[in-house]
Amino acid sequence: MSEPILPRVEGPEDLKGLSDEQLQQLAQEVREHIIETVGEIGGHFGANLGTCELAVALHSVLESPRDKILWDVGHQAYPHKVLTGRRDQLATIRKYGGLTPFCAIEESEHDIMGAGHASTSIGYGVGLKEAMRRGQGEDGAVVAVIGDGAMTGGVAFEAIHQAGGLGTPMVVVLNDNGMSISPNVGALSRYFNRVRLNPKLWKAREGGEEFLTKLPAGIGDRFAHLGPQLKESIKAFWAPGMLWEELDWAYMGVIDGHDVHALREALSEAIAAERPVVVHISTVKGKGFAPSEEGGLEGMEKWHAAKPKSIANGAPAPSAPAAKPTAGAAAPAKPPQYTQVFGNALVEECRRDERVVGITAAMNSGTGLNILQKELPERYFDVGIAEQQAILFASGLALQGCKPVAAIYSTFLQRAYDQIVHDVALQRLNVVFAMDRAGLVGDDGPTHHGVFDIAYLRALPNMVLMAPRDEAELVHMLHTALLYDDGPIALRYPRGEAVGTPLPAAPRAIPIGTGEILREGDGKVALLGYGSGVGKALDAAALLADHGIRATVADARFAKPIDAGLVAQLQAEHDLLVTIEEGVLTGGFGTGVWETLSDSGIASRILRVGLPDRFVTHGAPPLLHEEVGFTGQAIADRVLAAVGSRAPATA
Amino acid sequence: MSEPILPRVEGPEDLKGLSDEQLQQLAQEVREHIIETVGEIGGHFGANLGTCELAVALHSVLESPRDKILWDVGHQAYPHKVLTGRRDQLATIRKYGGLTPFCAIEESEHDIMGAGHASTSIGYGVGLKEAMRRGQGEDGAVVAVIGDGAMTGGVAFEAIHQAGGLGTPMVVVLNDNGMSISPNVGALSRYFNRVRLNPKLWKAREGGEEFLTKLPAGIGDRFAHLGPQLKESIKAFWAPGMLWEELDWAYMGVIDGHDVHALREALSEAIAAERPVVVHISTVKGKGFAPSEEGGLEGMEKWHAAKPKSIANGAPAPSAPAAKPTAGAAAPAKPPQYTQVFGNALVEECRRDERVVGITAAMNSGTGLNILQKELPERYFDVGIAEQQAILFASGLALQGCKPVAAIYSTFLQRAYDQIVHDVALQRLNVVFAMDRAGLVGDDGPTHHGVFDIAYLRALPNMVLMAPRDEAELVHMLHTALLYDDGPIALRYPRGEAVGTPLPAAPRAIPIGTGEILREGDGKVALLGYGSGVGKALDAAALLADHGIRATVADARFAKPIDAGLVAQLQAEHDLLVTIEEGVLTGGFGTGVWETLSDSGIASRILRVGLPDRFVTHGAPPLLHEEVGFTGQAIADRVLAAVGSRAPATA
Repeated sequence: MSEPILPRVEGPEDLKGLSDEQLQQLAQEVREHIIETVGEIGGHFGANLGTCELAVALHSVLESPRDKILWDVGHQAYPHKVLTGRRDQLATIRKYGGLTPFCAIEESEHDIMGAGHASTSIGYGVGLKEAMRRGQGEDGAVVAVIGDGAMTGGVAFEAIHQAGGLGTPMVVVLNDNGMSISPNVGALSRYFNRVRLNPKLWKAREGGEEFLTKLPAGIGDRFAHLGPQLKESIKAFWAPGMLWEELDWAYMGVIDGHDVHALREALSEAIAAERPVVVHISTVKGKGFAPSEEGGLEGMEKWHAAKPKSIANGAPAPSAPAAKPTAGAAAPAKPPQYTQVFGNALVEECRRDERVVGITAAMNSGTGLNILQKELPERYFDVGIAEQQAILFASGLALQGCKPVAAIYSTFLQRAYDQIVHDVALQRLNVVFAMDRAGLVGDDGPTHHGVFDIAYLRALPNMVLMAPRDEAELVHMLHTALLYDDGPIALRYPRGEAVGTPLPAAPRAIPIGTGEILREGDGKVALLGYGSGVGKALDAAALLADHGIRATVADARFAKPIDAGLVAQLQAEHDLLVTIEEGVLTGGFGTGVWETLSDSGIASRILRVGLPDRFVTHGAPPLLHEEVGFTGQAIADRVLAAVGSRAPATA
Repeated sequence: MSEPILPRVEGPEDLKGLSDEQLQQLAQEVREHIIETVGEIGGHFGANLGTCELAVALHSVLESPRDKILWDVGHQAYPHKVLTGRRDQLATIRKYGGLTPFCAIEESEHDIMGAGHASTSIGYGVGLKEAMRRGQGEDGAVVAVIGDGAMTGGVAFEAIHQAGGLGTPMVVVLNDNGMSISPNVGALSRYFNRVRLNPKLWKAREGGEEFLTKLPAGIGDRFAHLGPQLKESIKAFWAPGMLWEELDWAYMGVIDGHDVHALREALSEAIAAERPVVVHISTVKGKGFAPSEEGGLEGMEKWHAAKPKSIANGAPAPSAPAAKPTAGAAAPAKPPQYTQVFGNALVEECRRDERVVGITAAMNSGTGLNILQKELPERYFDVGIAEQQAILFASGLALQGCKPVAAIYSTFLQRAYDQIVHDVALQRLNVVFAMDRAGLVGDDGPTHHGVFDIAYLRALPNMVLMAPRDEAELVHMLHTALLYDDGPIALRYPRGEAVGTPLPAAPRAIPIGTGEILREGDGKVALLGYGSGVGKALDAAALLADHGIRATVADARFAKPIDAGLVAQLQAEHDLLVTIEEGVLTGGFGTGVWETLSDSGIASRILRVGLPDRFVTHGAPPLLHEEVGFTGQAIADRVLAAVGSRAPATA
């Protein structure tokens, strides 16, 4: 290889004037830089190795930031970061204070939009371009890069529909690698497969005439008596663009997504067309990294993200979910992940009751539903990146007598809010919401923190909300939820390791709306935790003991309905009632405790501990907890300040 | 016409054994019954006149409720109601205690799902059928009836995608009348037009071979040198089913939706296919009612719903939005509708600032944006029934320097919750949310009441929330929102007539987070209203005066940030602070007042007036307000009880 180019690239302007060969070399250097860096520090992996040539081609053809490159989700944007002045900072990505895991407006003028949720880039692009067409800001090209997985999100379809209607001059690069995070599912995926896997299509633009000779013999479903295979040939010939063309987009494809020259040519042509154009490219997730490329679908999913030191130490360790802990292992057993406990418990519930089914929205292993898929595949559903449909589908299942468990991260469930209100709560259907990643998730940052669910669900009639303080309670609560038959019920639990409590031999039902006192105190302070807040309450109580305060510690278990008797008792028997929750304080659990007391005409003095009214950055959870004061120490300090002070009798 | 059939129809079983001719006659009788009844009492109109033959055909072919008929939105389900035992009750529809305006599970075993929001029926259907396939409940056919307008909602696409992937045996009847409520927009609409307006397609199944002779001469975009018209013929021949077929649905159409025989035949064939099948039918909105049918697109939109007495008194009065009030008219001027005040004010703001644009999601006249469309069409956008895209589009516009105003009903904005959180609030973009229909909307009932927005928006960082107490404040607040440049800002206002306050000659900016005292009292009671709560506060104050209490009345204006100084003052200077809001109390404005005081360490005694933690039925707003205690009298009674009692100093 000739002299390295990447060390000289400080920004997109340094790509101008390079030959196609040099650009192709640069793409490979970007790939190696990512493998080296992310292999060392951990981070999103597979998707980024697939977009090296694309990022180089885009930045060589376009003038960013005047021209707008929109990276859907942004976990495919590492090459873009490397090319736009952040090459040497890549080693800080996802670390507290370091580069953000996705794109972020405040990080670089080249990050046009921020996004950690899928399917938003086309919609943003329509807005940008229509603003330009009305003279706002500087005019430029608009290119949205979206994966085939993200195309299953309904809002992407809404955006394509609007842009087609307006004739918005913009380009969508459909980055088709046949994967979202899990292998794609559904009809759209099969459609892409037909296109991608048919070698004839790659030559369609030149060789199309050959097909014509076959046409009269087979012409679609309406002529079923004619040869079905010929019909398929013709459908396949027409198919790649038809979905788009019928919505008034021009279609170009399929382009080899690892050929810089082909990409540059296609992009230039698409931009020059001054109309809605989709450029369908085919890439390999994990391109250039053998363990990923050679591992097939499983390898690709495994290497969606990499754990630190996964390459440097020669022992590949992709950040796949931890395996089920092996009983009787020699090493001190680490607590299991909440995700795994949930996944195993759901399988048990499915075995116990044939009506139970599990639903994921393209987060197969992230939710632990891979366990269900393996054990009881007929009880497992993956709707794709389509949270709205996940909930509507659950509604239909519930109407017919099933007991659907929708396992969706807290932050992604926001996509289905109207379905929760209008199709579940109003209809009082027995849908169970299992919200993983509730609270601060860590490295993935503000797009992924699950901090609003208590507030947005608590406002809804007919809804029951609960949160386990440990993995044993998680098992009991899932069981409770599946026995409950008077409407929707939700449980939330954090990302990562559970507490280490032994799992119960058999689950039991918890009476709805009952909390429990874990430790009786001396009447000064009651610490009332919800979910992960209980652990913080115990931590704080231990520290308060050093100051001579024996705090009462209680687990609310339910944020709706709140145990009115328990909170009245805690209020009556203590000088100060402290609520602790890993969610925004505005409208949250602590506020609900006040509402409960107020509705009973009880005066209260409540200190609410939780998350602030601002978005919290990314980084390791302990650092984030420190920053927002969600630690035993911070809580103990606030309690000491409060009980030491001559505060009014109520606040 | 032979002897009437409808009087003998008490349920779907009475359709069995009727001939096609008799069924066709029955459909016409259903239509006449609806024209007569809805013309007298008011209600949804146009869509229902279009589905008479379809409802008859469905109930004659299927065995409801074992077979499931899912009516998307349900405002096209009146004929279904008439045929399923509710013929004589139709006169009570939308009235308090009467038939519900859409379908409702609790109203009839034939109403399989409840829905007032669009695009949900296919998703429900997939769930129902997949549950049946797993042995849950009785097996039966599943047929979802969805309008072409509702097809723009992304969740419909998500559902089609899932069903295609699973091969779910179900039928979608695509009821294509070229309208949602406003005329359809966007690429999908043009697609449907091409199909519907091309008479050749109606014969495609029989006459398709004719096209084949033309094929070699024109074969899509890839052969642009060939005759473009021939290409279009071929595209049109292929088009109708292609969108569906590529997602693994079988396509049948276009069927005349007013021909019972053709419908029955198509439905039977589709159900027998035991796979995903779409039956594309063409209907006329307002069929059989001359003022609607002959009024073209405008007539159809006008007669989407009818006002009471609109036909009986011979002077058609569709329930279109009231016209702009004419100055100097002789009759005592009725207050204008909030919607109209908003629509006019937005046009003024657009004239004042070229960056301002308006966005609606298929609610052109319902939001008052028809005024903008007429006056400044280039500043007006209708994205279709696609609230998610409305907000993403607004985000893109805002990023490029526009000032987008997304005018969406409170209840429909729930569809875009994730976009509000992730794409607007987190990015701190200057998007204005104008939420019409905030509070109890009346006849349309619980699917349309806009009662959660305060709670679900208040939890979000960077968000500003305000509500005008009258139409003058609405003008000022819209102006305030458009001057604000530090993130998103939302205003909510009720359905219907404003207060009657004179409109200002010029709008002024209200300092963010400032309320105002409207009337000073005697220190016993402070009534703090938000939005429409201020009027109730004034009503209550007038009644309290009769009991010797001179209440202070204040307008909070902002629910976020709440005027901390004002609420501290009100709390300090009065024995009792009463908050009044037209939204759910859980996590609402009143709770926010407590949070504000609590955060300042101030003890409070707050009586919160608002909406209860249950879904509220349909009916005239005064009746609903009475039911939930949202009246001056009910508030005065509660205040008297509270100040008369020896309640604890705080509650």
